[in-house]
Amino acid sequence: MRILGIDPGTRITGYGVIDVEGNRLLHVDNGIVSTRSSDPLANRLKTIYDGLQQVIETYQPVEMSIEQVFLAKNPRSALTLGHARGTAMLAGVNAELPVSEYSALQVKSAVVGYGHAGKHQVQQMVKALLNLPEIAQEDAADALAVAICHANSRTLNQAIVQSGRR
Amino acid sequence: MRILGIDPGTRITGYGVIDVEGNRLLHVDNGIVSTRSSDPLANRLKTIYDGLQQVIETYQPVEMSIEQVFLAKNPRSALTLGHARGTAMLAGVNAELPVSEYSALQVKSAVVGYGHAGKHQVQQMVKALLNLPEIAQEDAADALAVAICHANSRTLNQAIVQSGRR
Repeated sequence: MRILGIDPGTRITGYGVIDVEGNRLLHVDNGIVSTRSSDPLANRLKTIYDGLQQVIETYQPVEMSIEQVFLAKNPRSALTLGHARGTAMLAGVNAELPVSEYSALQVKSAVVGYGHAGKHQVQQMVKALLNLPEIAQEDAADALAVAICHANSRTLNQAIVQSGRR
Repeated sequence: MRILGIDPGTRITGYGVIDVEGNRLLHVDNGIVSTRSSDPLANRLKTIYDGLQQVIETYQPVEMSIEQVFLAKNPRSALTLGHARGTAMLAGVNAELPVSEYSALQVKSAVVGYGHAGKHQVQQMVKALLNLPEIAQEDAADALAVAICHANSRTLNQAIVQSGRR
């Protein structure tokens, strides 16, 4: 099963694609879609949408996983971030991908085993879990982390369903 | 020229379509796209996107006008509202409509001639300006107001350009 993880942002949206084969996680690709802050917001949203649509077309993931973003302290930043996050979710649902949401706590717990892990620990664990040659760009690493979180949560659910069947 | 005005919201997104013929404003349609609060956010965004896409297909507007929404007091509401607003803008840019944004102050000034006008005054003026048989639903009236604001701002720009040409 192929999962697309997203770390949304108006300036930089990170994406990470992984395959889940049994208990194994395989890295497929990671990267970012960046927008110019000088562009009108509508155009920046289109850049994010088109970029993610291209990633989806290229890698054909079957599920999307996206972080419930950190709440910005001021409503204006939260509003702007909401535009980017909504755009990313829409790129998913418009490609008929089920979209799952995870809190930062859930992502860190799944990846590092500790909900209050620092950014660097998350990046290191993503590198280790996916056998990356080097640490991925920050937003791309976060996107891979939320994809890993979804993979683990699915594996767990499957285990529960299987044990229920016995 | 046909303008689509939008008043975005996660629960109710209002839309209003008007034609501008010289100095005349003609009402074409208005309505709302509503979503179920029990649905996952991704599905609600798709409902808004598909609904507006259908309005665009039906009425073929050439420009979109959208309000710079009131900033919610808490970041969580602002974040959620941002998702809906981003979705509406994306429905516009994906249909290749230029998207213009106006503040509540600009909209009220354009429609009522007074930036701090109340909701009811705006609705009354929208009804009067467009010769509506009755007051439109609140969110639809706001959408018509932002369309009227864009029409006025365009007429003004045109007047300036014309006077510059003399």
